[in-house]
Amino acid sequence: MTYQAELIAVGSELLLGNVANTDARYVSEKLASAGVDVLYHTAVGDNPQRLRTVTDIARGRCNLLIFIGGLGPTYDDLTKETVCAVFGRELEFHQDVMDEIAAYFKNVFRREMPDCNRRQAYLPKGSLVFHNPVGTAPGCLFTAGGVTVAMLPGVPHECRYLTNHALLPYLQARQEGVILSHTLHVFGLTEPMVQELLGGLMDSAQNPSLAPYAKSAEIQLRITAKAETAEKCEVLIAPLLAKVQRRLGAHLYGMDMGSPEAHAVKTLKERGLTVSTAESCTGGLIAKRITDVAGASAVFPGGVVSYTNEVKAHILGVPGDILDRFGAVSEPVAKAMAEGARRITKSDLALSVTGLAGPDGDDRGNPVGTVYIGLAAPGGTEVTHLVLKGGRESIRQQAADYALTLLNRHLYNSDQKAKGENEHGKE
Amino acid sequence: MTYQAELIAVGSELLLGNVANTDARYVSEKLASAGVDVLYHTAVGDNPQRLRTVTDIARGRCNLLIFIGGLGPTYDDLTKETVCAVFGRELEFHQDVMDEIAAYFKNVFRREMPDCNRRQAYLPKGSLVFHNPVGTAPGCLFTAGGVTVAMLPGVPHECRYLTNHALLPYLQARQEGVILSHTLHVFGLTEPMVQELLGGLMDSAQNPSLAPYAKSAEIQLRITAKAETAEKCEVLIAPLLAKVQRRLGAHLYGMDMGSPEAHAVKTLKERGLTVSTAESCTGGLIAKRITDVAGASAVFPGGVVSYTNEVKAHILGVPGDILDRFGAVSEPVAKAMAEGARRITKSDLALSVTGLAGPDGDDRGNPVGTVYIGLAAPGGTEVTHLVLKGGRESIRQQAADYALTLLNRHLYNSDQKAKGENEHGKE
Repeated sequence: MTYQAELIAVGSELLLGNVANTDARYVSEKLASAGVDVLYHTAVGDNPQRLRTVTDIARGRCNLLIFIGGLGPTYDDLTKETVCAVFGRELEFHQDVMDEIAAYFKNVFRREMPDCNRRQAYLPKGSLVFHNPVGTAPGCLFTAGGVTVAMLPGVPHECRYLTNHALLPYLQARQEGVILSHTLHVFGLTEPMVQELLGGLMDSAQNPSLAPYAKSAEIQLRITAKAETAEKCEVLIAPLLAKVQRRLGAHLYGMDMGSPEAHAVKTLKERGLTVSTAESCTGGLIAKRITDVAGASAVFPGGVVSYTNEVKAHILGVPGDILDRFGAVSEPVAKAMAEGARRITKSDLALSVTGLAGPDGDDRGNPVGTVYIGLAAPGGTEVTHLVLKGGRESIRQQAADYALTLLNRHLYNSDQKAKGENEHGKE
Repeated sequence: MTYQAELIAVGSELLLGNVANTDARYVSEKLASAGVDVLYHTAVGDNPQRLRTVTDIARGRCNLLIFIGGLGPTYDDLTKETVCAVFGRELEFHQDVMDEIAAYFKNVFRREMPDCNRRQAYLPKGSLVFHNPVGTAPGCLFTAGGVTVAMLPGVPHECRYLTNHALLPYLQARQEGVILSHTLHVFGLTEPMVQELLGGLMDSAQNPSLAPYAKSAEIQLRITAKAETAEKCEVLIAPLLAKVQRRLGAHLYGMDMGSPEAHAVKTLKERGLTVSTAESCTGGLIAKRITDVAGASAVFPGGVVSYTNEVKAHILGVPGDILDRFGAVSEPVAKAMAEGARRITKSDLALSVTGLAGPDGDDRGNPVGTVYIGLAAPGGTEVTHLVLKGGRESIRQQAADYALTLLNRHLYNSDQKAKGENEHGKE
């Protein structure tokens, strides 16, 4: 089976902009890794008529429809009823599902199940049931006229659980062929510069395809191949990969690193190193991103969010005269913050960020977007000065991206240096 | 004009799950606040044929199409060409836009503009140009056969800037009527319990409509009305609001509070109070969320991320015998962490979180999801014990939501108490 998928998210909160459609991102990423092409994302409100129309269009252009959301117990949860109407199916009651929901209420909420949750035990006739041990909304899957229809709950952790434990195993058992991608990480070039260097190699319609993707602190290049097996994908990819490596040289500093924080945690763990943080304008974002990674506790003792000069001085030990002389947003303060974090947490490395995320500049003439990033290491402390563009949230995200990328570049360079010395020693 | 909008995001990175469609969330929220109904979100890859089909469907069901993304300088940026083909328009060169892009390269990137960026100066004939001072991709807007077509760049800060400075002013000048919503905040009830209490009042098809929305630490109820003016909306809303208030009583603790962090910062500022943080399993997320709010520096001196026992003891002053006796994930440690943060940052209030976000439980038999939240105040320290469900990221988000909601409940209760004493004093 070759699946071509459309994801249909149901919920007025998406159209009102109350939440981002993070479920679609998660499910898409998982489908891509399983070799399923996702052609469309659609979001529609809690409106049966529009959901019907959308379902009709989707089944005319895709053979895998994945509905997300609208499986809850309340009156505005209409996905099952509406989709069943389009496909001419009835809903049928599942006593075992009902028992699971009642048990979930008893064990987790420690109370009786309200009557309205009974609705959640009705599923399309002939469905494969996606039993849900992490919530009350079961998912399901059925096929009708060559179209596979799956339904997943919209609550993110339930959606994720059922994607991994029910939907993907089903699809993987039936999917023909494999899609395999590698992501190359490029530092110190802009997207147009990469395009000029790579010239005719970029074509997203080829197999393998090559496409650029601009991140805030680096450019990523994705090489994607489709073939019967992963090995055959690698054979297709190898010649293109070699050409790209030749053309970009030292600007390429890694492959398949994942997020900068995931790569940093992995590399630090491999080398038995730790890192701490001292954050002003990023306000805890770097610590949060490092601790997003499961297992971060092995490499991250902790950090300090020093939003005021008092906390910079009192907890991190930034000398008062440096704060007075240069101001909080300055190279010497970034240096002292990183060194302070390294000292008080006894870490091997430390990152610091001080800057102006906006809305206002400071009284020393620094514009919004001014950021100093410190990286303290046993061999000394380096400070990088940036002037970033964008709104407050964007500047904070970019500053965190840069800090983590600088940490990765530091780890890469020290590794290359060690290897070089090793090579030299062998001669 | 009454607009019914479809947002069409263009970019294979969305369908591959590399990024979430946060632009659609942002633009939708802004359109809702301007009274524009968004009926559909669609996302499609960098594929001209599918983008054509999607555009054709959209113009048959909506009269405002907003394309986001695919306006960049590289070969896979095809939005303008494809949309123009559907609407039978040509692209025309704008010298003034070209000059702006060249100047942006010179001033921001400090180098010459590459040739490929010339493409960005071509816009559909007869367009209103959305000049872009925060990036290189200008947006545009034209109308054809009763359909308004807008194009915005996909880079989030550029998309946001042009939404606020170009798209919204255009629409607001032409939009008939106003949509107005109020969000009510409910604590201590589940969604089905709210539904039972409100019974027949909930109907998303009425004017005003009433719809529930379950957040991790509270239930929100949204009342939405549409009328010619904001005043007429309020008149429609008032009787329904009064009924809801009667039925939910003390469980209602606020209206239009925004995010818990925004409300906390606003309330603390009004009362001249400060809060600090001491975070273990949330790893900086609470500090990050507080400092997401512009102006947080007035109420947030800083915080500590204490991922190891050493940092808890050394920086926050949690007594070693408490850590040994009760373990890091315990009520006494949450209490000592909050009190430590309050002491070292000299804040009025302090929040602490210690818990197990997973993937593993601890060696004392605490399951994943065990979380203790401390709130230190001049009158003493309270600790709340939760067992949360979900994956690592979800548990961290829920713990942060609870901590901020507990802070808001504390601020609400102390205000009610002060008012009560005031009332009492008057008698």
